[in-house]
Amino acid sequence: MRLTTQVLLVLLFIPIIANAATPQSGVDAFNKAMDSATRSMNNAAVLALWEDDGVSLLPSTAPIVGKKAIAKMLDDVVAMYPGGKMKKFEMQCHDITVSGDWASEWCGEHQIVQFPGGKPSFDSWGKMLLVLHRGADGKWRVKQEMWNQAAAGAL
Amino acid sequence: MRLTTQVLLVLLFIPIIANAATPQSGVDAFNKAMDSATRSMNNAAVLALWEDDGVSLLPSTAPIVGKKAIAKMLDDVVAMYPGGKMKKFEMQCHDITVSGDWASEWCGEHQIVQFPGGKPSFDSWGKMLLVLHRGADGKWRVKQEMWNQAAAGAL
Repeated sequence: MRLTTQVLLVLLFIPIIANAATPQSGVDAFNKAMDSATRSMNNAAVLALWEDDGVSLLPSTAPIVGKKAIAKMLDDVVAMYPGGKMKKFEMQCHDITVSGDWASEWCGEHQIVQFPGGKPSFDSWGKMLLVLHRGADGKWRVKQEMWNQAAAGAL
Repeated sequence: MRLTTQVLLVLLFIPIIANAATPQSGVDAFNKAMDSATRSMNNAAVLALWEDDGVSLLPSTAPIVGKKAIAKMLDDVVAMYPGGKMKKFEMQCHDITVSGDWASEWCGEHQIVQFPGGKPSFDSWGKMLLVLHRGADGKWRVKQEMWNQAAAGAL
């Protein structure tokens, strides 16, 4: 009995140990931080997840190059939708690949932003392709991000 | 004089040797092949530049996963625009980064497709973010590609 319990405990901990050891777990931590920062509409926290020379590639828009320009874009979006509050945010990422200090993944995302005064909600489904870089501090940040619209209902 | 000529020759060849040695040169070769295949609207040649499990992320479309689905998408586009001929194709890529057998880059592209019978041309400006993988044969192929519209005039 005692041995069985020990074996069970070891088996239970293997996935935890394996997860802690894989480079993917760093990208998972990045994804959680991005999810949390977007969900709380915390632009400073979103910006902290970008590399200094990161590039954001949005539809029908010139490439937004560098943290300063990305900060302005984030502020502009908030200013464009005064009083907006994130009611729902979901993000699901696929094909996480790590090679040295570089990683990539693509994600589906769905957000519903509510506005005061009975204005209609902003309900958007999108896809993202992300190229990430791991800094000297071991943290992953966005080097390039592209976004386009997804079919509604598809994460 | 003889020595000067030798030094000059060595200096002239340094960039060629350096270029051949960098992993970026393999991505440059991929870009040239993609440019040529797209320009000649050669779907078989485009498809040969994809990984078997590559993912194409197009706007307002579900992710297109795998070479078979990508082949169908390429054929559908050609069928949708019968008699179309590429009049002009330009592609400019930036931030080529190689780490082991993985690479990424983002590109601007501009294409003008002409049609018979005086139909209006298709004149499109786009941006792409590409994640590439180097196969056992040393060739780079697309693992993930996302596209969105660019501002007209911006490569």
